[in-house]
Amino acid sequence: MNPVIEIVIVGNEILSGRTKEANAGYMQSVLKKAGYDVCFISIVGDRIDDIADMLAFAADRADVVLVSGGLGPTSDDVTMEALARAFGIGLMLDENVLKHISVMFRRRGRFMSESNRKQAMIPEGGVVLDNPLGTAPGLFLKPVGSDASIFVMPGVPRELRTIFDESVLPRIAGTFGVSPVEVATVSVAGISESQLYDTIKHLPGAAAALSFYPMYSGIEVLIRTDEHSPATASELRSDIVKLLGDHVFSTSGEPMEKAVARMLLEKKVTVGIAESCTGGLIANRLTDIPGSSDYMKCGIVAYSNESKIDVLGVDPGSIARFGAVSAEVAGEMAEGVRRIAAADIGISTTGIAGPGGATPGKPVGLMFTAISSVDGTHTKKLQFVEDRRINKNRMSQAVLDLVRHWLLGL
Amino acid sequence: MNPVIEIVIVGNEILSGRTKEANAGYMQSVLKKAGYDVCFISIVGDRIDDIADMLAFAADRADVVLVSGGLGPTSDDVTMEALARAFGIGLMLDENVLKHISVMFRRRGRFMSESNRKQAMIPEGGVVLDNPLGTAPGLFLKPVGSDASIFVMPGVPRELRTIFDESVLPRIAGTFGVSPVEVATVSVAGISESQLYDTIKHLPGAAAALSFYPMYSGIEVLIRTDEHSPATASELRSDIVKLLGDHVFSTSGEPMEKAVARMLLEKKVTVGIAESCTGGLIANRLTDIPGSSDYMKCGIVAYSNESKIDVLGVDPGSIARFGAVSAEVAGEMAEGVRRIAAADIGISTTGIAGPGGATPGKPVGLMFTAISSVDGTHTKKLQFVEDRRINKNRMSQAVLDLVRHWLLGL
Repeated sequence: MNPVIEIVIVGNEILSGRTKEANAGYMQSVLKKAGYDVCFISIVGDRIDDIADMLAFAADRADVVLVSGGLGPTSDDVTMEALARAFGIGLMLDENVLKHISVMFRRRGRFMSESNRKQAMIPEGGVVLDNPLGTAPGLFLKPVGSDASIFVMPGVPRELRTIFDESVLPRIAGTFGVSPVEVATVSVAGISESQLYDTIKHLPGAAAALSFYPMYSGIEVLIRTDEHSPATASELRSDIVKLLGDHVFSTSGEPMEKAVARMLLEKKVTVGIAESCTGGLIANRLTDIPGSSDYMKCGIVAYSNESKIDVLGVDPGSIARFGAVSAEVAGEMAEGVRRIAAADIGISTTGIAGPGGATPGKPVGLMFTAISSVDGTHTKKLQFVEDRRINKNRMSQAVLDLVRHWLLGL
Repeated sequence: MNPVIEIVIVGNEILSGRTKEANAGYMQSVLKKAGYDVCFISIVGDRIDDIADMLAFAADRADVVLVSGGLGPTSDDVTMEALARAFGIGLMLDENVLKHISVMFRRRGRFMSESNRKQAMIPEGGVVLDNPLGTAPGLFLKPVGSDASIFVMPGVPRELRTIFDESVLPRIAGTFGVSPVEVATVSVAGISESQLYDTIKHLPGAAAALSFYPMYSGIEVLIRTDEHSPATASELRSDIVKLLGDHVFSTSGEPMEKAVARMLLEKKVTVGIAESCTGGLIANRLTDIPGSSDYMKCGIVAYSNESKIDVLGVDPGSIARFGAVSAEVAGEMAEGVRRIAAADIGISTTGIAGPGGATPGKPVGLMFTAISSVDGTHTKKLQFVEDRRINKNRMSQAVLDLVRHWLLGL
């Protein structure tokens, strides 16, 4: 029970930070749901001595070592050699693996090169873990003289996930047992982390069960309970939802745009979007959801005053009197795009994303949004204080949250 | 010379993958330019025993250990205690640090709490590294019985950067020397990694000097040379630029949207954008650049056929005859947005982002773009093969690259 788990990621592209690492996060989330915590994540490049060092250290301090990457056919892929070197064992050609590799090649209609034979060289004493999706097999090794269980998987995410789910997790659970853990999430917007914490900290078992992950797009509350917890995760989730009311936009981990898209589809509401300061970001987020053509009619990125006037029909007098960054212009933009898009609601943004563009009384980060429907137009003023990209992101989140509130009838 | 350098990142929020880590990348890029390579990056949570273990292991295998995080005033900030535990030394109150902390608080008009005294507890034998921007000081420690130099810095990026630049790098350079290293980059688009490699691999010293970082947005070639290299980084850069011609979009590391924005401003060309399958992503990328109002006139996200017809003026007959996803409709969209935006050029996208929407002869990932100007309209067909978001990203890159070529007069 409670093994020390270490993840070792192999590869220059990860070490240098140029490629985003996805396998550690995947394994962690699956392990968390099974009741295990990861203690260490280590990243190492493609040098065989460094990998061997890293593996020896990891086997020394951890009970379970999960290794990702370095199993390809090219000369920089040396994880198996490093494993053999770290524990003083040899590599042997595994005929079954070789057969699997040649079948994979034949099926793809490609010729197997000599370098692919390398992928069939397996450290002595290791157990091959089948890779139904690729040529590089996984491996399970308990080195002589070490208590650690070492699992090696290819770095290709879909191959790693399959091997991890089918071969690795069952072995970990078989060795260390599974504590019945329950996990739930609540995603909230429009409330600060300290307000959120003060509102829910008195719930039974909150201190042990809750973790908070603040993001530009809101705060995700992760709830994890086990058989010793005074309340189950789903009980805590419903308590939190009751306390936070309409601040909650999801209890399934979906992002805000997905929650809004789902509500638009359910209520059969179509939208038109007129964006100035957010520059297309809201349209882009709403069209990241498959099937968005069912609710997304038209977006206008009206960056210049002329396009606000000529395309959206904003009154030049309003711009002259109140400025392009004003509640009045936001309202006219929302009304204009609703009409042009022939949509049920029109949404707009206008503001100063920064770093330039501030005027007396209108600082960087000042933004207005409006939502227009058959029932009239509602505008809202917001002030953000960060850099251009973060301001655009926070504004897009606030506007989507406003649409969500409108759809809830609030 | 050539020390083994390990970075140790402390914090649950980083270990869990919820917070993006920025300090390792910063230190690596500065070290790379000074001629040093990082061998290991290790990530550990907030548990004191795990941190102490990690530090002891790191001091064992590395010559330089760079530690980030866990220096705050709260009870989960235990890096200094862990350091003391790992090397069997005590913590002592440092009066100078305490004075600095109280001055920082007075300057901010805030009251110093008892918990901030903790930040003045320094491991015996350690050298305090000034933190002009915050309360948590940095620390340099050479533990007795170890050859490692350990540097501890706060996790707040701007504080870490200041301490790293002013106090840490000079000490590393003083101990291990600096080899005069020259660094340059070339960013390319519209060419595969293997084509790129084949084109430039024969350059003198290429194997040692060049690293390739493929991204959705192109490939970045990093060039690093030292006094032993047969050519300097700038010589290699100009050779690469000559060989790759207009595939090169930047030699300063700027992203594609910045390169295009720079050219639009230089040539005083304004744009209108009509996006269907990219859903606002191109407008969003072009408006991520400060000052974009000087070239970005208007964008239209014309997701529905009605908006293509009513807003952009596409002929309903063209949609009926060729389909909304066609070169003809892409061309009419570009012409329409150019007229509506009163811009010098009109750009358009239409396609099937996926996963749904494929029809016989029109698979997921099929996309068309067009560019319209006073000289006429040019259309291009593209086929992508990945998921919705990646297809949108690749298409936005291809379209920006097309605009770049148009601006080059190609």
